[in-house]
Amino acid sequence: MKLKENERIDNLQYNNLKIIQNTKGFCFGIDSILISDFAKEIRKNSIGVDLGTGTGVISILLTAKTNLSKIYGVEIQADVAEMAKRSIELNHMQNKVEIININLNEIEEGEGNKKLQRESFDFIVTNPPYKKLKTGKVNKSEYKYISRHELTANLEDFIRTSKYLLKDRGSLYMVHRPERLVDIITLMRKYKIEPKKIRFIHSKINKEPTLILIKGVKNANPFLKIENPLIIYNENGKYTDEIYEIYNMKNIKE
Amino acid sequence: MKLKENERIDNLQYNNLKIIQNTKGFCFGIDSILISDFAKEIRKNSIGVDLGTGTGVISILLTAKTNLSKIYGVEIQADVAEMAKRSIELNHMQNKVEIININLNEIEEGEGNKKLQRESFDFIVTNPPYKKLKTGKVNKSEYKYISRHELTANLEDFIRTSKYLLKDRGSLYMVHRPERLVDIITLMRKYKIEPKKIRFIHSKINKEPTLILIKGVKNANPFLKIENPLIIYNENGKYTDEIYEIYNMKNIKE
Repeated sequence: MKLKENERIDNLQYNNLKIIQNTKGFCFGIDSILISDFAKEIRKNSIGVDLGTGTGVISILLTAKTNLSKIYGVEIQADVAEMAKRSIELNHMQNKVEIININLNEIEEGEGNKKLQRESFDFIVTNPPYKKLKTGKVNKSEYKYISRHELTANLEDFIRTSKYLLKDRGSLYMVHRPERLVDIITLMRKYKIEPKKIRFIHSKINKEPTLILIKGVKNANPFLKIENPLIIYNENGKYTDEIYEIYNMKNIKE
Repeated sequence: MKLKENERIDNLQYNNLKIIQNTKGFCFGIDSILISDFAKEIRKNSIGVDLGTGTGVISILLTAKTNLSKIYGVEIQADVAEMAKRSIELNHMQNKVEIININLNEIEEGEGNKKLQRESFDFIVTNPPYKKLKTGKVNKSEYKYISRHELTANLEDFIRTSKYLLKDRGSLYMVHRPERLVDIITLMRKYKIEPKKIRFIHSKINKEPTLILIKGVKNANPFLKIENPLIIYNENGKYTDEIYEIYNMKNIKE
């Protein structure tokens, strides 16, 4: 595998999976690991879409952790999409994961890709940009900006597109920041994706949450289940048992 | 203090406060204690309303814990309202707490009470009925039913009335069940009361939350802060330090 400038191959620490990342670009974090684990309940032979796949990390992990039939990773940035394709090949997942280089806002207009048809997917998984676009001058040349800010698609675009793609009773899995919870919940309701399950991620038990995992089901009845908190570090500053399990690092625990 | 049939005087375990409760009726729980503590940030000389005050427990605790100027306790059940009035007298709080025996849905129509005027309150505090009214036969003769179910006023009535009563930037403090979070958030947004702070209550740290405390501010900008979890019992099954502090039981801790 030939790498481009500033690229390196990282180990996903799961079943010997690898990922190509650009050291000057957006590198995956624990949020991608956690959303992949949160969504692993998807049924055998499911087909789904990873909206804003970036390096492809969520699509790769979810393919490894489940018996999904197919997952399409939608990514707007051409060079990032191309890098993700090479990561798929590196992990021999070409038959299950397909990267599509479009703006997700083109999906509904049907201009995007004939493979992304209305109401034909069992699940959507997404780690969207967390930050609202600030008014004022924006340095669009900053490489990571597009992955972190709602520059080319905002939260409503992600949720509206999810509604378009999901079958009746299909599931949307999203990781986001707690301060956007009100926006997420009101937008999901607006687009008939009922929030059914939320899990809060805390770095330590006595700290406020830093991330949220949320599952919505299209056209479902209202009844929210908030799960027990997911704690990353225990009192000694080491990973908790649950994090070790999620990372599949039991064997290297001690 | 003369008690009626089935009534008894309970100790609120805070500054020697007392409360009259009917042993066949709805008796206060930890939710009332916690919402009183959550709302104790209200400013000196604030005036507010306790919607659905029941025994008056929240109004009494909040009066003891803050320097509020006046709190009106709205209660639909005549006998419960009368009992609450006697508890106010028992605690010598007649100058600060006033019980008003009306259905909160009469407030907006102006039929309720001239004291409850539009946009004139700094805060609303409420522990509304948790359960949705089930369709089908309802045993309305059950004494506690009205306190637990949305029989005479539902969640939207509580939030819409709060909007009516609150000044610009006034605060709504509510305790409720986690499964209603989506309803609460969407209704608050509908009535321009922006959710600003949420705290989840867990019986134990590894359990899902059993209650939520939520603060909304009328006409505020969106930005939600989710606080650290409030844990009731530690691993030994004893109250956590924070619960001891809320109950003001430091002196009897060990």
